[in-house]
Formats: sequence, structure tokens, C-alpha cells
Amino acid sequence: MQQVTINEVGLRDGLQMHRTLVPVEDKLRLAGSLVEAGLRAMEATSFVSPKAVPQMADAAELMAGLPGTEDVEYSVLVPNQKGLARAVAAGAQAVNLVLSATDTMNEKNIGMSLSKTRETCVATVREARAKGLQANAYIAVAFDCPYEGRVEPQVVAELADEMLEAGAGRVIIADTIGAADPVRVRSLFKVLLNRNAPEIFACHFHDTRAFALCNVWESLQAGVTRFDSSVGGLGGCPFSPGASGNLATEDLVLFLHQCGYETGVSLESLLKSVELAKEITGRDLGGRSMAYLNANRAVKTRPAPNGCDDTG
Amino acid sequence: MQQVTINEVGLRDGLQMHRTLVPVEDKLRLAGSLVEAGLRAMEATSFVSPKAVPQMADAAELMAGLPGTEDVEYSVLVPNQKGLARAVAAGAQAVNLVLSATDTMNEKNIGMSLSKTRETCVATVREARAKGLQANAYIAVAFDCPYEGRVEPQVVAELADEMLEAGAGRVIIADTIGAADPVRVRSLFKVLLNRNAPEIFACHFHDTRAFALCNVWESLQAGVTRFDSSVGGLGGCPFSPGASGNLATEDLVLFLHQCGYETGVSLESLLKSVELAKEITGRDLGGRSMAYLNANRAVKTRPAPNGCDDTG
Repeated sequence: MQQVTINEVGLRDGLQMHRTLVPVEDKLRLAGSLVEAGLRAMEATSFVSPKAVPQMADAAELMAGLPGTEDVEYSVLVPNQKGLARAVAAGAQAVNLVLSATDTMNEKNIGMSLSKTRETCVATVREARAKGLQANAYIAVAFDCPYEGRVEPQVVAELADEMLEAGAGRVIIADTIGAADPVRVRSLFKVLLNRNAPEIFACHFHDTRAFALCNVWESLQAGVTRFDSSVGGLGGCPFSPGASGNLATEDLVLFLHQCGYETGVSLESLLKSVELAKEITGRDLGGRSMAYLNANRAVKTRPAPNGCDDTG
Repeated sequence: MQQVTINEVGLRDGLQMHRTLVPVEDKLRLAGSLVEAGLRAMEATSFVSPKAVPQMADAAELMAGLPGTEDVEYSVLVPNQKGLARAVAAGAQAVNLVLSATDTMNEKNIGMSLSKTRETCVATVREARAKGLQANAYIAVAFDCPYEGRVEPQVVAELADEMLEAGAGRVIIADTIGAADPVRVRSLFKVLLNRNAPEIFACHFHDTRAFALCNVWESLQAGVTRFDSSVGGLGGCPFSPGASGNLATEDLVLFLHQCGYETGVSLESLLKSVELAKEITGRDLGGRSMAYLNANRAVKTRPAPNGCDDTG
């Protein structure tokens, strides 16, 4: 059976914009629950300015307490070499860099042009590699930019190549505003796979339009076997109009398992992680399959009354 | 651009199990709104026992008042020749027959064995054709039966062939409990297309596990260009554990349009139909893309504050 790796981003991408500060103890409880559920790749935290992202101010303390570090591939987000230094000091073994595919998105997001962001990412990737860390490059707004509109596959391919040449081991194609569809996914990967093997890539889809699983499916056809998702669908960008955010890990696991892929995750156990995430954030979380998942825990079979299903 | 036909089933499949009786005037207002939105194929009502399905007791009266009958392909569900006679008397031009793929589902649903149901459907299709009506055959529980489990593609293919031979012009593959996934869709169509052109088929997917659009996508790859859906996601089977029901028409339209298909439907106008459906049923309806659709009506662009999207 084909293996697919799920990279759980709830702890970082999920939590980062959450309006109340979640104590490090609760973050660690969630990490433990996710490890228990079988997740073996996770983005743990980010080393950015605590003033800009207060939720991540406890990054070093979190790193010190992470469970299962022998078995789990923990990565951390760093914006630049300064963040990298803090990550290294905190024992990080893998860092994630983010590069948006357009000028305006980089300007609005981190106050730098695309050109300057590229330089920064390349320098940070090189230094991370020199220090023996793995470096992963996210290409954000890889399909549509909320400011500049449609992004051409060629642009994404060039940025990917630049990061790979700098030493990145993986490029993550990120659909920041959930604008992708399987047609766009297919054309992007057609270009990307001209120059690179599919193993190089992972995908980070948002479920804004409820197309995320279609995009996962089409990526699988292209040979991608690694996807980001967030427990309970926690997080994503609340500022993109109508963005419902991250693809829920439970939706992704249900889909992958049913399609015959192995993930190493126990869906039953993951649902406990969803409950925990709800508890520590005070939010009513849960993916699009929750009604089905909850009902199927309670009821094995139940006869349909007469006349229920005259058609499909 | 490739055309795809959406067959709107809200008036029948959507409304039939609704707990309060919707007056015929309201059903006709909804029909008018759907025609206004550009829908040109609809399942209007069913001619079944009014005792069994009181919601459909106004079938003949509804038929007499349907808007746009010159442009819209209206079909009606009939269970047998008795229902067919009433449909003919009411001016129906196309009838839908339903055949579940397993014994137990037919027994539970309509009190007949698979064998008896096949006989009944064949006889009714033949008579409909003799009277100059179009006849469409639904194969229900075409993927998984809630009682008997997995249904083999070969079984579905044989039932399809039997109905086509009897004179059915179309076979609709119905995923009654929303159990299908793109792998199953692909294997089923591999078998079905050994013997028939894709134009023969339509699909009726339920969105129980949030896989419906993935299944639509895979069906499109197989050459299917006709899909059932229900305005606002109204209806489907409330008795299947966790069944969230029908694929919402607005989700389907958004997806198809973005993937480059023409449907003839105005999404903006369709959203008014969703509002009307909410009003006449008193239910909070809306597909999985509603948050996105509503937000995008209100907001064209809105800048993301600093630090919003550090990754995808």
C-alpha cells in the first residue's frame, strides 16, 4: 500500500492567529495527543518576532518539551537568519522558509519585495544546511494571489528551483487562499515535474471553497505523497475573504484511508486530538466529515424506514 | 468549453422527507427561481403513494403549474406502472425509476426483492417508452449498501444493461449513503464504459463524507457530463447514519465553473434560490462553499494584516 505522509500544522499554522494565548503546557498536551494518534511529521512552532506573533513567543520552551522527538520529524518556521539562530539554539532539526509568489503578497505579509524575500530565503536555507539542518521552502499563493491574481506555474517553478538549488530538501506548494482546483493543480505539476521528481514536493491546501480534497486527489495522481493539514481544521488565514482555512487532518485521513493509502494515523485517536484542540482553544473545531465521523461512532447500522431512499 | 448538465433534484429528492408539508405554491416559487437561475433539468416530483410520502401528494397540481416547460427537462419519479399512469395523466414527459443494487436495500426501501424490483422497473420502463416518454433508471447504493456492504461494479453494470435494454435512455449512478471515493468511481466506470458510452450515464453523489466533488471530478475524467445536485444541499437520506445528504447545487456550480465547465447556471441567481429554499423549508440550508460565496459578495479585496500568512 502506498504511504502518504501527513504533516500536521495545527500547532503553528493552526494556533498562530488564535486570539487568546494558549499556554505552552496545553500546546504540549496537544502535541502529545497528535503523536499518540500516529502523526510523525509536525510543524511545532515558529521563531518570529514575539511582538508580531505573540502566540509563538514560547517557541524555545515548547521545543524543549516536545514529545517523541526520536520518531517525529518536527519542523519550525523561520523568517530569516535571525530566526534560524534562535531555532538552532532551541535544538531545531528542520526549518521552514516561506516565500510568497508575488511582490505584493510579500510586501503585505512581511514588508519585503519578492526579490528581497528570495535573497533572504536563499541565505537562510544555505545557512541552515551549513549547520546540518533540513530546510523546506514554502511557496505561498502558488495558485492565486489575493492582490495580483493568477500566478503562472512558471513563476512557481523558478522559485522552487532557486530554493532547491540553495539546498532546500523539499518544496511545499501552498494554496494560501484556497483558490486552487484540480485543473490548476494538474497544470502546475505538469510544469514542476518537468524539472523535478514528485518526491521533492508537498502540498498545503486550504479548504476555503471546499475543493481541498479534490486538489489532494489530483496531487496524488501527480505523485505527491505528502500533505499539510491541521487538526480540526484549526487556523488558516482569517483575513482572506471567506477563508475557512486549513484542511482538517481528520478529513484528509478519512479520505486517504478510504482511497487505500496508509498514513500511520489512527482516525479514532485523532478524534480525541480534535476534542483536545477544541478544549485548549475554546473553539468549535472539526472538519467537514465530522457529522459522519461522529454518527459512525454511535451507530453501526440502523434500518431505513420505508420510502426513505427512493433514489440515490 | 465543455458543457455539463446539472439535474436539480431539490424539489423531489430534496423536499420529500422534509418534516413539514411545503405548499404547492411555494414549491412552484422555488421551481421558478431555479429556472431563473438557469437550471434546465429538474426532478419535479414523484408519483408515489401519498400516504407513504405526503410531501408529494400535490404532484399532479405541481405538474400543472411548472414554469418554463418548453425549455426545462422536467422528470418525475415513479415506482411502478401505477405511478407511471398518474404521471402520464399529469403530463409528464420523462420518468425516473429507482432500482437499488442489493436485495436488502430494495426490501427495506420498497418491500420487494431485487429480482422483483428489476421486473417492475423493466415493465415500467417499457410502458413509459411505449407511451413516448423518456425513461431514466437510477441504480441506488451503487457503491456501498448500508446492509450488504460493498457492491461490485459488475452488479451495477448488469443492472444498467438491463434497464438500457428495456429502453431507458439514461442510467444514473447513485451513491445513496455517500460512500464513494474517486478510486471506487474510477473502477466502476472502467467496467461501465466497457459496454456503454459515457453519455449514457449521470451521477448522483451524496456529500456525507465531503467526498462528493472528488467523485464528480473523477466522473468528469471518465466522460460523465451530467450530475444531480440539490439547492442548498436540501435532502438526501436522514436515516443513513451521519448522512449529511445531497451535494449542494451551489457547491457543484462553483466547482464546475472554476474547472472551466459551462453549466448555464448563474451562481449569483442560484444563491437567491438557496435563500428561497431556506424560507420555504424553515431550514438553515447552504452548501460547503457558502462561507466563501457569502464573503465574496461582500468583499472584493481586503488587505491581510502583517503576519497573517507566514505559510500557505
